[in-house]
Amino acid sequence: MNRKQLTDNIRAKRSYLCVGLDTDIKKIPQHLLELEDPIFEFNKAIIDATAPYCVAYKPNLAFYESLGVAGWIALEKTVKYIKANYPDQFVIADAKRGDIGNTSKMYARALFEELDVDAVTVAPYMGEDSVTPFLGYEGKWVILLALTSNKGSLDFQHIKDESGQPLFESVMKKSQQWASSDEMMYVCGATQADMFDEIRRISPNHFLLVPGVGAQGGSLEEVSKRGMTEDCGLLVNSSHGIIYASTGTDFAERAAEEARKLRDQMSELLNF
Amino acid sequence: MNRKQLTDNIRAKRSYLCVGLDTDIKKIPQHLLELEDPIFEFNKAIIDATAPYCVAYKPNLAFYESLGVAGWIALEKTVKYIKANYPDQFVIADAKRGDIGNTSKMYARALFEELDVDAVTVAPYMGEDSVTPFLGYEGKWVILLALTSNKGSLDFQHIKDESGQPLFESVMKKSQQWASSDEMMYVCGATQADMFDEIRRISPNHFLLVPGVGAQGGSLEEVSKRGMTEDCGLLVNSSHGIIYASTGTDFAERAAEEARKLRDQMSELLNF
Repeated sequence: MNRKQLTDNIRAKRSYLCVGLDTDIKKIPQHLLELEDPIFEFNKAIIDATAPYCVAYKPNLAFYESLGVAGWIALEKTVKYIKANYPDQFVIADAKRGDIGNTSKMYARALFEELDVDAVTVAPYMGEDSVTPFLGYEGKWVILLALTSNKGSLDFQHIKDESGQPLFESVMKKSQQWASSDEMMYVCGATQADMFDEIRRISPNHFLLVPGVGAQGGSLEEVSKRGMTEDCGLLVNSSHGIIYASTGTDFAERAAEEARKLRDQMSELLNF
Repeated sequence: MNRKQLTDNIRAKRSYLCVGLDTDIKKIPQHLLELEDPIFEFNKAIIDATAPYCVAYKPNLAFYESLGVAGWIALEKTVKYIKANYPDQFVIADAKRGDIGNTSKMYARALFEELDVDAVTVAPYMGEDSVTPFLGYEGKWVILLALTSNKGSLDFQHIKDESGQPLFESVMKKSQQWASSDEMMYVCGATQADMFDEIRRISPNHFLLVPGVGAQGGSLEEVSKRGMTEDCGLLVNSSHGIIYASTGTDFAERAAEEARKLRDQMSELLNF
């Protein structure tokens, strides 16, 4: 999916919501556990219920890997289901991969060719040759970790170099030499909304994938005011607040309700 | 496996060789492709041939993920095969994972409980809460990326902070507050052997997992002279140089030969 298609979907739905499919077998409603593939059945119900209110889905691969082979099967089925039924949804594999060149190439093959997602989150620590193998797939995106939403982001991402520039800025500046804003986005956590002016100074045009709204405490309003570009330029993720809104048989309806609420707020905040 | 068991194995075998199972369906001998699970059959033959000469195996998860579900099945079979037949081998999942706390917990569960490896490589960019969920499993290890062997390691890992300390040193120093040298190792690439004196100044006692000898150009002798501790403190990895020594029907014999050569050099270099 290219940038125009993505922003057209945002315009049409008046939403820049990404629903995080952090599907945990220990947290899904009990009654699903009797089904053959409870993870997929849960995802399917969540997707059907929330699709009108979001433009993207983000399965976090850890949750699937933790179930071994059964988890991978559920993940593949989930991505196929979205692609077949909601082709306008942008699918992000939240994988946070990054390895030496020929290994990153294998991850790119796994995620873009086998799983066929639209975007992959990538960790920057190993530098250029760990990131560039994910580039060059038409309509596919790298979403590079810049400033994450967790407490540990303070450990290294804010370390200032000899010129006073924090590490996350070095990551954003250097990586802009590798790829344009038509194939790279950045992860910037909503919990660090006070940094969004700075982020937009470094990178006025890139899409940002913003986790940390809701359960983690980030403010949708703050992030949107500071981070929005002319064509939106934001995908704001919510996982637990939507998919675990209820653990009863009404989980899908309640998920839809939470997604709709966020869509309504987003519709107000959009500048077009 | 605890540190004493690992060093006892090194003593007994006079080897600190780790064989990297970067098994690529496009590179393995043609005649294996007729078998039901060529990846596993390749690994099994390599393991049987090289086990006398090494103390560790390191499957790189990218190579298995790139095959989807079939790859995960091959990986699980490979780890089980090593554990069942060569219980003295240290098994490293080269995964380079790292995510927010509750997600890292899922990866830890996937790799330590489901797959049951001895160690996992972890990326440090997201800081403490992305790393600590991998700790506290008895006899299991985190191997944190410090100074990697690839060209891109120059992009961020060497950035000096305001006090002149490069990022990889910040990573090593800060992470020593999270875990002892009985549960944490560091990845330090052989291609940066000139940094090993500095690395041993920061971390005199931690085991180092050293990729980059052989194909990538690092020197075993240099790394060993600068990096060895009283109980060895090194696991030196070789992947392609061993597993792809031949692409004919003699691939396992040739792998054994290459592994034996490295063991012989290591035996000379050991200080006990």
